[in-house]
Amino acid sequence: MLTATTTRTASRALKATAGARRGYTTEPLPPVLRRAVLYVPGSNPRMLAKSIASPADSVAYDLEDAVAPSAKPEARRLVAELLDQDRSKLPQGEVVARINAVGTGFEEADLDDILRTRSVQAIMLPKTNEPDHIDWVVSRIRALAPPEKQRGGASPIRIIGMIESAIAMVRIEEIAQAGRGHLDSLLFAAEDYCADVGLARTDSRTELLYPRSKLVTTARAFGLGSIDLVCVNYKDAEVLRLESEEGRRLGFTGKQAIHPNQVDVIQRAYAPSEAAIRKAARVKFSFEYHGAKGTGAYGLDGIMIDAPVYKQALNTLLLAQTAGLDIPTITEKDI
Amino acid sequence: MLTATTTRTASRALKATAGARRGYTTEPLPPVLRRAVLYVPGSNPRMLAKSIASPADSVAYDLEDAVAPSAKPEARRLVAELLDQDRSKLPQGEVVARINAVGTGFEEADLDDILRTRSVQAIMLPKTNEPDHIDWVVSRIRALAPPEKQRGGASPIRIIGMIESAIAMVRIEEIAQAGRGHLDSLLFAAEDYCADVGLARTDSRTELLYPRSKLVTTARAFGLGSIDLVCVNYKDAEVLRLESEEGRRLGFTGKQAIHPNQVDVIQRAYAPSEAAIRKAARVKFSFEYHGAKGTGAYGLDGIMIDAPVYKQALNTLLLAQTAGLDIPTITEKDI
Amino acid sequence: MLTATTTRTASRALKATAGARRGYTTEPLPPVLRRAVLYVPGSNPRMLAKSIASPADSVAYDLEDAVAPSAKPEARRLVAELLDQDRSKLPQGEVVARINAVGTGFEEADLDDILRTRSVQAIMLPKTNEPDHIDWVVSRIRALAPPEKQRGGASPIRIIGMIESAIAMVRIEEIAQAGRGHLDSLLFAAEDYCADVGLARTDSRTELLYPRSKLVTTARAFGLGSIDLVCVNYKDAEVLRLESEEGRRLGFTGKQAIHPNQVDVIQRAYAPSEAAIRKAARVKFSFEYHGAKGTGAYGLDGIMIDAPVYKQALNTLLLAQTAGLDIPTITEKDI
Repeated sequence: MLTATTTRTASRALKATAGARRGYTTEPLPPVLRRAVLYVPGSNPRMLAKSIASPADSVAYDLEDAVAPSAKPEARRLVAELLDQDRSKLPQGEVVARINAVGTGFEEADLDDILRTRSVQAIMLPKTNEPDHIDWVVSRIRALAPPEKQRGGASPIRIIGMIESAIAMVRIEEIAQAGRGHLDSLLFAAEDYCADVGLARTDSRTELLYPRSKLVTTARAFGLGSIDLVCVNYKDAEVLRLESEEGRRLGFTGKQAIHPNQVDVIQRAYAPSEAAIRKAARVKFSFEYHGAKGTGAYGLDGIMIDAPVYKQALNTLLLAQTAGLDIPTITEKDI
Repeated sequence: MLTATTTRTASRALKATAGARRGYTTEPLPPVLRRAVLYVPGSNPRMLAKSIASPADSVAYDLEDAVAPSAKPEARRLVAELLDQDRSKLPQGEVVARINAVGTGFEEADLDDILRTRSVQAIMLPKTNEPDHIDWVVSRIRALAPPEKQRGGASPIRIIGMIESAIAMVRIEEIAQAGRGHLDSLLFAAEDYCADVGLARTDSRTELLYPRSKLVTTARAFGLGSIDLVCVNYKDAEVLRLESEEGRRLGFTGKQAIHPNQVDVIQRAYAPSEAAIRKAARVKFSFEYHGAKGTGAYGLDGIMIDAPVYKQALNTLLLAQTAGLDIPTITEKDI
Repeated sequence: MLTATTTRTASRALKATAGARRGYTTEPLPPVLRRAVLYVPGSNPRMLAKSIASPADSVAYDLEDAVAPSAKPEARRLVAELLDQDRSKLPQGEVVARINAVGTGFEEADLDDILRTRSVQAIMLPKTNEPDHIDWVVSRIRALAPPEKQRGGASPIRIIGMIESAIAMVRIEEIAQAGRGHLDSLLFAAEDYCADVGLARTDSRTELLYPRSKLVTTARAFGLGSIDLVCVNYKDAEVLRLESEEGRRLGFTGKQAIHPNQVDVIQRAYAPSEAAIRKAARVKFSFEYHGAKGTGAYGLDGIMIDAPVYKQALNTLLLAQTAGLDIPTITEKDI
């Protein structure tokens, strides 16, 4: 029979190995606020210039779908030139380059030129169908990027893996565990995914519930962010708002934008509402208030408030704070 | 070329290994009727006393979320004392203790005290993120529980694993295959799950369709029960009824209750309706009637009735019978 | 540091191994148009005779659920006799035999008789719960089928694997990778699946979204077709139409039919609509038109058109063409 001492040791060992078995052999990257990811065509000098003033959380300079094959070298040159400028002359948000997929014949030259720039912060990789694709990007980062952007440095180059096929969805757990120290987020590329699987996207998006849910769950399990589909209707702000709020409810941490007009709507949707912030602040206050009195579980507005509800409230408040939103002061009379 | 004999042997061998390859190296536990699982705060003497009369299928004495940290030792003492009484003095349903999760620092003392009691029948384990957590509980059962409650005994201590995080959902197939001979059910802990994944639970529960469906599918694949989310709105019986019926349609075998008022609504929903029982009885009668005549597939009320439909009817009748409901007598004129 | 040459080699090696790592060690079978799969009871001589004129894409002669146990030998004899006729005397569509599941005691005699026939093109295997079941069918094909129908021949016998249980859904990725060179499609058998998982099928089919989505995704990932559930209501064409269109939107490549009346509705639904074909033709024309001018991404009807949208349009046009539908001619003034 085990003694109390060996039992306790066994239980502690369980906790110590838990991290390692989750693939967290290195710590997950510190999270960034990445509500709206705005694509900017890499071949369009006017749009490149205009992007500098963008309020988007991330600006993704595109060398892939927005650029015709014949225009690739020129787009690569323009984007590399832009990203080699001093950080202060670039957009306030994260600066990302979307390169071409492994197998297109453009990907190596893309990385060769982009990774040597002074200011690139993240690489977005299309058609991430294999963990090897991410490992290959990591090996190029080690070979080409400035030392402080390699692993161990203060701000390693981050990788955003685009999930756009059935095989990527089947392999997503392997993919999510690749490129530790660099892989930051998974992104759902709906149009390519639909074409690959033979799905028809409808206004209800019911057909996409399974892949979107699986992507969010897997990303969160391995400490990654998750970026939702593009709203292709860029003329109707209400459609965009509803789609953005839906994505947020599903657990996505951000959303792609293909037009500058979409950024504001997305950033509002991916921030908690005033009502949600107030509710979270009341939950926080009341939970700590009852906790200090040793009450345990109790009701607020007819709903049982316990530890998990409290944690959800803390998440909401953290998100509000990072987005620069006001958090109301709660007192005893508000609960 | 294979002879008829070797072919037949090959096919038989296929059948023989099928069980083993499913993780059924030991038989699944005999199922229990566990429609409503009622939580009772372990630190509240009045509620503990009141619980004895509960008609719930399972009563889960809670040492976890309903108990403030400072109250843990007292709650553990109260629950252990209660569970050490003679079985006849306890609730008519299954008697369960919900301990604290691995890593909280409370879990070992919880098991030390609870597993030595005379009447505990099941352990509910929060935050079952790793198969190892279940294996650890099994090792404690072997060390501490009365011999007849260890594997091989008539009624081994059962384990209910709580799934409340993204990593648990990703690892759920491994988790479902742990602790054979003791693991009985998986339980969906929606509030903690939502907080971990960053999901917002809405009235449609669309956001939860993926994890709930995956949990039910995995549980059933490995011969386990599945227990659905808490209805946090404990004041509106109609909301509870709809939510309960939805869970049952999804394949859950039972549901958590946080208030005694919820038990009856849940138990009704998790029993088949009068109409469903009558329909099942008609399907059974007609299928056997036509089978005796060698008719094969045939129609009833415009629907094709074949072997799978018949099996579904038998399941419905079994559930009705166990819940103590009337099954009507069907004759030739009813079909 | 890697030189440009080794880098390029590494990237090429990545592409070369990608196919192998997906299980595509042999090429996927060339796809067949299989919109409607009509079951014909193998024990009913009148229905067997009538089936010859069926316009269904596939006709599945059933030895399983539609045949009572006592009638199995006679049904097997009737179907084998029919399938041994010259191809020109059989239905215009694909000729399939649904045998009994591994473990029923009928499956070996079924294959013994069916695989020796001159005209059988595919075997439908019920309750494919294990990859081994498919491998066993392949081993019988190698032993019994005419040489030109074994692997390497012009038209190997195809296998359609029926997914009808929770364990099959959990193991579906392994199953999808079995029987390469013969496995052609996965089929969702809703009634048996519901009975096994304890699901209740409703008119919204929300309960089935997870398994149907997972099946389609997995099938597509491994180059297989996917066949949707039976519409058991065979009297209401409108219900069937809606259910068929839903299945197609989810990515299924075809649907089961249990009544000859269902074939036409299914075949219409699994062909693209006139509006969808016209839209696809406009997308194709405009994309190529702008591509020739080097425009890159551009808008059509307020929607951004890029490479993935173009690919989806090509798929639609291919499906229309195979189904024998008209594709309109588009000119500059239509875009």
